[in-house]
Amino acid sequence: MNQQHGALLALAHVVEPGDHHMGRLVDQFGAQAVVERIRAGAVPDRRIEGMQARLARFERTEALDALEPAQARLIFRDDVEWPSQLDDLGPARPYVLWIIGSASLRLAALRSVAVVGARASTHYGDRVAREWCGQLSDQGWCVVSGGAYGIDAAAHLGVLSAGGVTACILASGVDVAYPRAHASLFARIADTGLLVSESPIGTQARRQRFLTRNRIIAALTRGTVVIEAALRSGTTSTANAAHALNRPVLAVPGSVESPLSAGCHQLIREQQAVIATDWRDIPELLGGEDVISVEGTGPVSRPTDGLTSTQRLVLDAVPLRAWATLEELIYASGLSARELLASLGVLCAEGFVTQEGNSWRAARV
Amino acid sequence: MNQQHGALLALAHVVEPGDHHMGRLVDQFGAQAVVERIRAGAVPDRRIEGMQARLARFERTEALDALEPAQARLIFRDDVEWPSQLDDLGPARPYVLWIIGSASLRLAALRSVAVVGARASTHYGDRVAREWCGQLSDQGWCVVSGGAYGIDAAAHLGVLSAGGVTACILASGVDVAYPRAHASLFARIADTGLLVSESPIGTQARRQRFLTRNRIIAALTRGTVVIEAALRSGTTSTANAAHALNRPVLAVPGSVESPLSAGCHQLIREQQAVIATDWRDIPELLGGEDVISVEGTGPVSRPTDGLTSTQRLVLDAVPLRAWATLEELIYASGLSARELLASLGVLCAEGFVTQEGNSWRAARV
Repeated sequence: MNQQHGALLALAHVVEPGDHHMGRLVDQFGAQAVVERIRAGAVPDRRIEGMQARLARFERTEALDALEPAQARLIFRDDVEWPSQLDDLGPARPYVLWIIGSASLRLAALRSVAVVGARASTHYGDRVAREWCGQLSDQGWCVVSGGAYGIDAAAHLGVLSAGGVTACILASGVDVAYPRAHASLFARIADTGLLVSESPIGTQARRQRFLTRNRIIAALTRGTVVIEAALRSGTTSTANAAHALNRPVLAVPGSVESPLSAGCHQLIREQQAVIATDWRDIPELLGGEDVISVEGTGPVSRPTDGLTSTQRLVLDAVPLRAWATLEELIYASGLSARELLASLGVLCAEGFVTQEGNSWRAARV
Repeated sequence: MNQQHGALLALAHVVEPGDHHMGRLVDQFGAQAVVERIRAGAVPDRRIEGMQARLARFERTEALDALEPAQARLIFRDDVEWPSQLDDLGPARPYVLWIIGSASLRLAALRSVAVVGARASTHYGDRVAREWCGQLSDQGWCVVSGGAYGIDAAAHLGVLSAGGVTACILASGVDVAYPRAHASLFARIADTGLLVSESPIGTQARRQRFLTRNRIIAALTRGTVVIEAALRSGTTSTANAAHALNRPVLAVPGSVESPLSAGCHQLIREQQAVIATDWRDIPELLGGEDVISVEGTGPVSRPTDGLTSTQRLVLDAVPLRAWATLEELIYASGLSARELLASLGVLCAEGFVTQEGNSWRAARV
């Protein structure tokens, strides 16, 4: 682990997730310098004492040793698996992500949708979440949600029944089942999909972390679907985050007699969300969007300005450190074989991509 | 009955309702001249033979004699009870209206809302229609709908339970119960509210008449609420008519699993309707609208340009041939006593209105 990664790992243990102020300092001075400043008490922040206490307790080897028993891994901002969509969060983006599951978060996020809603959902909401997520999964979409009761669970179950990839973004550490009754659901998700958290192994869920976690769900995905939500509920925080990031929000209507549809209706009335009455509305609205950017802070930065949006989409789907088959690229990009091959031809010709037989990988430049 | 009224009555028997072409001829040459032209076969219209045949059968005394047994009355375009909103239909406005019921259509229409929806409604739709219409009625709104099964009937029943005024616009003659099972519902409506038709006594309902009837429902009211509607249904014709007349349309959402909410959702998605989730949304959206115009073709035409919209609303509520008490004006205008008295003071001072004790009437000018 290099110095930079070590410092980011420390910050993930020490700084509250989503803290813009600290994030800006890191962007300005670098992670290592900010860690040193915290240690020296040289950060103008009223929470400095708490950060110092946490930094004093932080042991890098302990943090790394905790990974294996949890079957977890880390990804850093400059890793090829880092989903560049998260960089839209600016200084509030995570320092590091803990992940359980073998799928690539970056590839999964390319064609992903957030499906969120009430914990105390109705049968109607659960049914819509399960059915729509199953259909979306069949169409190659990765569903992203939290780990709560209600709509979150129904969304994951819909994908799991369809045999697809679902990503569960947790407010606790990836090894902590919250709610406890979802331990077996999380185990099933880890088998074929992804458990993701910006909080260290062993972190217990805290109220505030659910709200800050929602920004990751919103940023990671092309758009957010709200299935059921009461007025002034936590669910609308994910919708607001998506809205702030210019990601489309869709809301599912329901009975005017159901308080759990009132939040959806309000989003529609206030034109913060488009009405969604069929799962097909989702790819129709999100499919044409190109929210993926190749420009990043890591090694995939390239002069890609001359590329079409399709070519950039393909380039984003091609892994840097491994070979990907055409089938894998179809899954990752959501494009047809024909479109892919046309774009890959250009990308190879221009030196962005290397081909070997039926496999491609991004060229280091 | 004067010559003008006689000619309009003949046209109502002879010309298909809503016929723009014939309506324009009447506006241009006058009703009497057009009747003479029809008689002479001097109208360039492929339906001229049918019109001539109907005109030959038309007997004015027979038409007038039919009124009393049906307990019906006629109102003409220049009657004080004629709702000037209908003039927004231009040449497609009715020539005459048959009415059963003692309420004033003009006063009822001042603060009225159309509530329409599917015949094959669900319990959900019926419940919403009944409850909302009862509440609207309690707030002094007149509900306007058709006479069909489903939402129409539920809307009227909601008003009747609340003891309010409901207006049923029929595609048949006002004495013809269609559907027959609604005979007792129509009798109840006639007791306290209004049965209205532009078709003569005894006219049977025909498919085309339902669609032309819908324009009256839309024009008469400040706005239209669609409770349940299938995709591509007749209900959307009323919504379209309201939209074309710049009357706001509201649609009630429901389960995405219900085909009877699909039409409402489509209206919302296409921004042809505002989402309505509570009866209070209706006065909130329609209350501020001033769709009432004093400028008309009849004796209430006056130089009212200098009046505020509130003063014009009050003037519209003051009857021309009878004295109205403050309570009646509150009901008719929907304004508070304080607002009314302020406007009445100005209207009296400017000679538009005459006061005697606690009663007001419009001055002939």
